Amino acid sequence: MPNSPDFKAWASERQERVEGVLDRLLPPEQLSPAQLHQAMRYAVLGGGKRVRPLLAFAAGEIAGAEAAAVEPVAAAVEFIHAYSLVHDDLPCMDNDSLRRGRPTCHVAFDEATALLVGDALQSLAFQVLCEQEDVEPGRRVEMVSILARAVGSRGMAGGQALDLASTGQELSLPELENMHIHKTGELIRAAVLLGARVSGMLAETSAARLDHAAKCAGLAFQVVDDVLDAESDTQTLGKTAGKDARQDKPTYVSVLGPVQAKRFAVELRDEAWRALEMFDDKALRMRQLIDFIVLRRS
Amino acid sequence: MPNSPDFKAWASERQERVEGVLDRLLPPEQLSPAQLHQAMRYAVLGGGKRVRPLLAFAAGEIAGAEAAAVEPVAAAVEFIHAYSLVHDDLPCMDNDSLRRGRPTCHVAFDEATALLVGDALQSLAFQVLCEQEDVEPGRRVEMVSILARAVGSRGMAGGQALDLASTGQELSLPELENMHIHKTGELIRAAVLLGARVSGMLAETSAARLDHAAKCAGLAFQVVDDVLDAESDTQTLGKTAGKDARQDKPTYVSVLGPVQAKRFAVELRDEAWRALEMFDDKALRMRQLIDFIVLRRS
Repeated sequence: MPNSPDFKAWASERQERVEGVLDRLLPPEQLSPAQLHQAMRYAVLGGGKRVRPLLAFAAGEIAGAEAAAVEPVAAAVEFIHAYSLVHDDLPCMDNDSLRRGRPTCHVAFDEATALLVGDALQSLAFQVLCEQEDVEPGRRVEMVSILARAVGSRGMAGGQALDLASTGQELSLPELENMHIHKTGELIRAAVLLGARVSGMLAETSAARLDHAAKCAGLAFQVVDDVLDAESDTQTLGKTAGKDARQDKPTYVSVLGPVQAKRFAVELRDEAWRALEMFDDKALRMRQLIDFIVLRRS
Repeated sequence: MPNSPDFKAWASERQERVEGVLDRLLPPEQLSPAQLHQAMRYAVLGGGKRVRPLLAFAAGEIAGAEAAAVEPVAAAVEFIHAYSLVHDDLPCMDNDSLRRGRPTCHVAFDEATALLVGDALQSLAFQVLCEQEDVEPGRRVEMVSILARAVGSRGMAGGQALDLASTGQELSLPELENMHIHKTGELIRAAVLLGARVSGMLAETSAARLDHAAKCAGLAFQVVDDVLDAESDTQTLGKTAGKDARQDKPTYVSVLGPVQAKRFAVELRDEAWRALEMFDDKALRMRQLIDFIVLRRS
């Protein structure tokens, strides 16, 4: 269960680990250009549940990788996630002023700096992935390719474009799923695939099962996000609540209603769990984490 | 000489080549999300001197690489360049409406789309570099690292941050050089290093000489840009002229005056040429290209 002391201890240890790695990999804030580096650190450090890094660690456990070996991957996906939040919050996108309980990057600094923060964090993610000294080059190349495809125009950035185009539109369930799979799902999937790829120990069938679980988890994450946006409050979320309805964006809540949306998230959790059965105990953390994603309150 | 029919034919052949590769590597505009793909193609295709790809090809010749082998590198650096132009033109940065003789991306589409175009083009550049099937993985990893460092917070994005911070300030010559080396120089240097790295045939000393020539060429490029911004007109440039003075930005013209700035560009050309001496005839195109960079009118 996600509330078990055992899972909490596991997650805390990994979260601390990833805070340390992010801190080490980000340029120090005294280094020129100092304001850009301060803003990069502001956008990445001190907040966030680090769900994507946790997924990478849990996938690493399935594939038999040590936590230390997964650290660069965990950092790379979090840099990408942070970049996407900074750009999504910009006035020309969601125009949001609150994130992780603090002013968004462009409010704390300025728009131009926030734009560059996102740009530089994306580069840093690829730098970190390709400079993993303990991973053989052939595998590093695969990892860069996985991440680049997951975040490009056919992945996360494409999902954002679909999201923009959907404002004020009615979407069918398949269209909504397609948007969410790209916007949120592709990076979550990449976090899992990359975490498992560090060790290179998964057979093809196992990798396919894990990927299926990751897809379900990614979609579940966004379904729950839609529910929380509709039902929670700004204080609890640390970001502006009720935004989807105000911006007239189609969501799982607007399409399915809140009850069905929650049921769908649980179904996705169950489907992910079934895909993980073959991994037995090695998938303990991944199962708990997916449970956490579905049951979280913020 | 850059005006020789021989150089023009060489450059035209390479420019056609790179247009074809960019066109093939960009997602088709019918592919979902269609508007994003249209905007990416708008931002990249149909315009531009393709100076960075040409530098990659010329460096490839020095290292003994076939033009076809350099194509992915040429495309990757041009995707990065196009992304940087789209983001630089945004209202929160230079707020420019004209580029390559046409409306800028955010004017032709909208700001949110332009933001995503830049983001997706950056990912595409790394995807193309790491998916070069004919280059051994160890070298691809090095290439991703070179590009990621060249464009990140200590490279191109950092140069933009310095540029923003310099508006309305007086800069010393070393400060100005530092800003320009990052803003423009790092990507030009990466174009040369990556073009030479495709074949992997350069010894360490040769690579260092070539890198020095690339640094001089990159700085010369920006010095000439400063001169053209001050002395040319919008029609000739295909982008807004006189912008630096209007925005009160320190440039080589504002610091050195136009005569000294032009002299400095020629000195940099001469220094680059000296660094290329050891390559004899193999550096013919690189010498002509650097000449072209210094003598260009737009």
